[in-house]
Amino acid sequence: MKHTISAMVENKPGVLARMAGLFARRGFNIESLAVSATERDDISRMTITVDGDELTLEQICNQLIKLIDVIEVIDHTNDIYVERELCLCKVACTAGNRSDMIDLGNIFRADIVDVGDETLMFQVTGDEEKIDAFVHTMQGYGIKEMVRTGKILLVRGVQAT
Amino acid sequence: MKHTISAMVENKPGVLARMAGLFARRGFNIESLAVSATERDDISRMTITVDGDELTLEQICNQLIKLIDVIEVIDHTNDIYVERELCLCKVACTAGNRSDMIDLGNIFRADIVDVGDETLMFQVTGDEEKIDAFVHTMQGYGIKEMVRTGKILLVRGVQAT
Repeated sequence: MKHTISAMVENKPGVLARMAGLFARRGFNIESLAVSATERDDISRMTITVDGDELTLEQICNQLIKLIDVIEVIDHTNDIYVERELCLCKVACTAGNRSDMIDLGNIFRADIVDVGDETLMFQVTGDEEKIDAFVHTMQGYGIKEMVRTGKILLVRGVQAT
Repeated sequence: MKHTISAMVENKPGVLARMAGLFARRGFNIESLAVSATERDDISRMTITVDGDELTLEQICNQLIKLIDVIEVIDHTNDIYVERELCLCKVACTAGNRSDMIDLGNIFRADIVDVGDETLMFQVTGDEEKIDAFVHTMQGYGIKEMVRTGKILLVRGVQAT
């Protein structure tokens, strides 16, 4: 089962290495990871998606929180949240199929952010399933290069009191 | 100086730990990191932003590529690229200032993705500077919670031949 964890950590060298080491020793493969600044300069927020059983994940969370510089760890399995991911996707394109691709992009509300001689670059935002569907559609044209941010999420406002 | 690196790695447990360990040993703080799937199931793509001098970064890149399961490392310092980041931001909101906040959100082309009793959640996409400006604007209202994906980028199509 897929789980998503948020971790608030001190913004210092070495924190990520310790956390990644913990997952690696347990043989847990991190499916996606997004680390970035927060509203506070000294704190970074990590959003980690892993695939594994609930018990092991609980053990990992308990060990993560004991690590130096880790402030808070939240397992979102039972939360109601908004999740989003961002994808940049450079797709092969000819004069003949460009308008088809633009139409498809519109269906996914994707923005075109670059036009090359033989490529179009799309930016698309949504949940994991939407990005997967977009990528699947574009595979038919030939994806030249692609990058995804990995999932980020916030718990909905009604829950956070 | 800030540098952005893309790394293509095998999708296996332990790769991230080895890479993060390398940065940590050099005392390099990873400012943002996005790791996710690519168009190929067996390969993950990492986008890493670090702050440091060019010589040390070159040495790190040379060592990264020698690590097991690391396929390719690209330093984008001299590339022409499209960069984007995604941010979810939950801001305190009252009946009195809600329409002001919606107007401000529109200026940044931010989407409202959740409405709580006393909060609005925005989703905003753009380069780092735009996200910084959005966050700065919303700080005046009181940011309850925020998460950013970290920067991702693709080299523009005209360059990639």
